[in-house]
Amino acid sequence: MRLRDRLRLYIITDRRLKDEVSSVKAALEAGATAIQLRIKDAPTREMYVVGKKIRRLTRDYDALYIVDDRLDIALAVDADGVQLGPEDLPIEVARELAPDIIIGASVYSLEEALEAQRLGADYLGAGAVYPSPSKPDAEVLGLEGLKEIISKVSIPVVAIGGINHGNVADVIRAGADGVAVISAVMAAEDVYQATLSLKEIVDRVYREVRGPD
Amino acid sequence: MRLRDRLRLYIITDRRLKDEVSSVKAALEAGATAIQLRIKDAPTREMYVVGKKIRRLTRDYDALYIVDDRLDIALAVDADGVQLGPEDLPIEVARELAPDIIIGASVYSLEEALEAQRLGADYLGAGAVYPSPSKPDAEVLGLEGLKEIISKVSIPVVAIGGINHGNVADVIRAGADGVAVISAVMAAEDVYQATLSLKEIVDRVYREVRGPD
Repeated sequence: MRLRDRLRLYIITDRRLKDEVSSVKAALEAGATAIQLRIKDAPTREMYVVGKKIRRLTRDYDALYIVDDRLDIALAVDADGVQLGPEDLPIEVARELAPDIIIGASVYSLEEALEAQRLGADYLGAGAVYPSPSKPDAEVLGLEGLKEIISKVSIPVVAIGGINHGNVADVIRAGADGVAVISAVMAAEDVYQATLSLKEIVDRVYREVRGPD
Repeated sequence: MRLRDRLRLYIITDRRLKDEVSSVKAALEAGATAIQLRIKDAPTREMYVVGKKIRRLTRDYDALYIVDDRLDIALAVDADGVQLGPEDLPIEVARELAPDIIIGASVYSLEEALEAQRLGADYLGAGAVYPSPSKPDAEVLGLEGLKEIISKVSIPVVAIGGINHGNVADVIRAGADGVAVISAVMAAEDVYQATLSLKEIVDRVYREVRGPD
């Protein structure tokens, strides 16, 4: 499958909301196409141990596996990629250290999007599309800002920030290659059901927009 | 210079006590032979930016440069080595990802020391020799514990934990190849003077123990 398609339903872990391993398993079972392991402020060894478990699960379900921020963990657990934002390693440095890894760049403006593409990012995580419960301080790009980015870059764009069951259709119709969520799934009582119903909307709207798979 | 000799006076940064760049410069000017960059809980980008500055300084002063915990930062800033403890990446995983990097293992018992050597560590940081102001929860090995480790491994051993101007001579006489300090230098009002006076003691006692350089 092309990277663009593997990014379609992109679920990000959040240990403040759910245990990583059980929530990822539920999300994969319900059809998530990509998993991002995002752990802040835990010992490296713990990230490594959890990260290896997520690697096994994502292999079992043939899902894309991205690690947030930490190139050491991404390499150590043999993840498919690493997600880098402005506070993380520079894209060009990560590319030199890991020529074959997928690099997703977190961008918050058109300027950052163009720069990340120029520096060699393989895809963008662009946001925040909406105000986000997980990152309340993030600047809001809006659907218009998202559309502008999508129209001006050639690499795949995953939309992120405040996306939920109620607005995901609008985001896909805006042209996003994928949608990334934290709270919409991880804050739900039942991660499997929340992912499944999100997946149904996502697949239906992609069929509308792009025709049958 | 052999690794064993480069480890002789090993200074570890602590941003809770001093800014890394200015304190490292002062320590190098006073004769530190090795610097460990140790930053917890800062964004990766900041570690990278500070880490590159320390790389330039350690090159200028021909000092060994080790990064604590973070193999991604060590590789990104082209440090000489990485220091790995029980909460960090496993030694054998780091070795596979970075075959040529120097790996220092933080060990707190004879068993850990033997295991780290077996797994391919290039040197040990063994402690805590004394109760440590920087790591008050660390288990205390004592001089006897340190001596036992030194007698049973073949790789260099840097002693760490509560070492200061008053006890450093005892630590060297116990057979340590080097001494690592945080508070003894970083909590001092004048890092340069604190390092210089420590260096004088260290060099003098090594001459006593091993003869002229």
